[in-house]
Amino acid sequence: MTTAKFANDAEVIEFARTNTPYFTSGEAPSVEEIGDGNINFVYRVKDSKDSVIVKQALPYVRIIGEGWPLSLDRIRIEASTLKTEGQWAEAYVPKVYCFDEQQSAVIMEDIGDHDNLRHALIARKPLPALGRHLGEFLAETLFHTSDFYLDTYQKKAAVSSNINPDLCKITEELFFWDPFCDHERNAINPAVRPVAEAIWQDEVLKIEAAKLKYHFMTDAQALLHGDLHSGSVFVTETSTKVIDPEFAFYGPMSFDIGSVIGNLLLNFAGQIGLEGDTEEKRAYQMYLLDTIEALWHTFEANFLENVKSKCQDPVFNAPGFAQAFIGHVWHESLGYAGTEIIRRTIGLAHVADLDSIEDEQIRSVSEGLALSVGVTLIKQRHEIRSPQVLRAVIQAAE
Amino acid sequence: MTTAKFANDAEVIEFARTNTPYFTSGEAPSVEEIGDGNINFVYRVKDSKDSVIVKQALPYVRIIGEGWPLSLDRIRIEASTLKTEGQWAEAYVPKVYCFDEQQSAVIMEDIGDHDNLRHALIARKPLPALGRHLGEFLAETLFHTSDFYLDTYQKKAAVSSNINPDLCKITEELFFWDPFCDHERNAINPAVRPVAEAIWQDEVLKIEAAKLKYHFMTDAQALLHGDLHSGSVFVTETSTKVIDPEFAFYGPMSFDIGSVIGNLLLNFAGQIGLEGDTEEKRAYQMYLLDTIEALWHTFEANFLENVKSKCQDPVFNAPGFAQAFIGHVWHESLGYAGTEIIRRTIGLAHVADLDSIEDEQIRSVSEGLALSVGVTLIKQRHEIRSPQVLRAVIQAAE
Repeated sequence: MTTAKFANDAEVIEFARTNTPYFTSGEAPSVEEIGDGNINFVYRVKDSKDSVIVKQALPYVRIIGEGWPLSLDRIRIEASTLKTEGQWAEAYVPKVYCFDEQQSAVIMEDIGDHDNLRHALIARKPLPALGRHLGEFLAETLFHTSDFYLDTYQKKAAVSSNINPDLCKITEELFFWDPFCDHERNAINPAVRPVAEAIWQDEVLKIEAAKLKYHFMTDAQALLHGDLHSGSVFVTETSTKVIDPEFAFYGPMSFDIGSVIGNLLLNFAGQIGLEGDTEEKRAYQMYLLDTIEALWHTFEANFLENVKSKCQDPVFNAPGFAQAFIGHVWHESLGYAGTEIIRRTIGLAHVADLDSIEDEQIRSVSEGLALSVGVTLIKQRHEIRSPQVLRAVIQAAE
Repeated sequence: MTTAKFANDAEVIEFARTNTPYFTSGEAPSVEEIGDGNINFVYRVKDSKDSVIVKQALPYVRIIGEGWPLSLDRIRIEASTLKTEGQWAEAYVPKVYCFDEQQSAVIMEDIGDHDNLRHALIARKPLPALGRHLGEFLAETLFHTSDFYLDTYQKKAAVSSNINPDLCKITEELFFWDPFCDHERNAINPAVRPVAEAIWQDEVLKIEAAKLKYHFMTDAQALLHGDLHSGSVFVTETSTKVIDPEFAFYGPMSFDIGSVIGNLLLNFAGQIGLEGDTEEKRAYQMYLLDTIEALWHTFEANFLENVKSKCQDPVFNAPGFAQAFIGHVWHESLGYAGTEIIRRTIGLAHVADLDSIEDEQIRSVSEGLALSVGVTLIKQRHEIRSPQVLRAVIQAAE
């Protein structure tokens, strides 16, 4: 692999010009590096008429350097997953203009008019269509990459070409191991350390987390986004875009759904300590629970409608099977929501919904609720039968 | 692929001589074609000192010809699976001397002193070690190819290199679809047709069969044998050998275990109608249930011991997780035993345990018991908590 970092703006512009129909007017485009800085390099190339995003992967983690190598295959998987998602949920992903394996770089639509969902939730922006949009995105991408839609040859080939061990290993460790023991990578607010210590002693919880890890590693149901937290979603009031599927692989549908639900609940917990009017914050919390409900009902209805109209397998479109399957997905989604909530509260990678609360004591109230909800979702996921019951469980945890 | 059938005995001998240390004395070896005749060509090459088996795959099904193409990749998978199984359960598989991709042929140890297990069971031969042997084979092969033993890179690479769609598709159709509808491929004794028709109307049963099919297609737990019926096992009173893993792929452990249990129960049902002394037949039926119990307890004990001594994953060797996992495997195994029993009774490929009962009416008694047990195992698999409860369930079905 000969991939080298673009040496300068001119190389980035040349790459964008060669591989798209844009930037041919003679005007010199500008280049801005807009990556969040952790892993990849991301550039906006823009002139007065057009704008595109160039994302380049290097064979190591950007902030660490060559000491932490990371497979370049992730950018191939990201580009091909964006294309697959675009095929089935066009409205919800940026268009891919080009993937260049030699450069390990992808050129895609600029969605710069959208805000990062995490920031929008922290700012309590009204996003009335968010639940429906995410439910549709999940139903379309998960259904069309599963055995409900693909024939057995297509499905098995897709599993094989989306084996993504470097990125899966990160999830396997950060979600399912670190937060359940006193790991050096954890970052824990001293005020909630006793709660963390109770988690490390909870043998029943650890068995349930192990089941979720095993299911994550073995159950190749559909092509997942694999990292569907609020930071991977961009929004306006009327539009939702899901980006950055470099963790994509064939896994259980419930992992993607649970990641979204977990992030909405992290914001729910964060609202307690975030600044603002109490009533407004409470209303936003209710909006978050409504959004989870809308997301789930949209997912369920669209998935079942897809089974009815498009599933060619006579076994899987037998009356009642898809409903039973979806019921199981709901329960497992709650478990993955729980692991996401816990690892974002006491693990390595935190979220601004909690970490932007500066006062440690105030933050610990939000974190305590998050941990309590996370533990309950993992241990009682089979008893929580619907979004309505979930609402009651969360209100009880408060 | 340039694979051509060996043109004559001389080519088979030349192949065996070139690829093993045997047949160099100058004596002319004999060649005998011993294949069961359905799919592949199998030869015994033998002189007064040595004997080996040469198995060749052609790119189509032998008895049908080029009209039913079948991927040659199956012989690569068979050879590599035999080697993997041999690494962990050496006593229970024939040694592989050579795999030649060009010829699509494998040379292996001759186990001609062993009898086919199906024939041995029909003849009610005493096989006191069978349950323990099969339990050990299953525990070692399934543990060492799973996430309990392999690291995440090794495991994912193994999943990818054992994608086996042609052979999986056969199972997906013959186990999980044909017997649950009025399919033209089915072969049904007119005397049990009303029972078959009741199965085709049983919506609850069909949902449970669909769950088992989905689990078979998605849950890549371990490298399965994939076709572990009595005809794939060869025995003496003190030795057990498992052959023919051309259906191998990464799937749920319970599928292999359930296939074995299903075949022992098919023989249980067959004993009713097979010729012989009533008391002797009853004693053999009890032996079959003892064998299932021994198989399960051996599998469980050895698998758990392996987890304890060899599992490097701190999540999967947490106290209680492996026990919970094994409990789940037991219940799913009963479901797959049920699908094997049903498809062998009313599907395309029958078994001699039932079909060698010549009188249709007498045979229908055995077949009726088999179908009743099969349906119960699928629908009530989660309630049957142990081999002892299984014993009670079968005696109740009688």
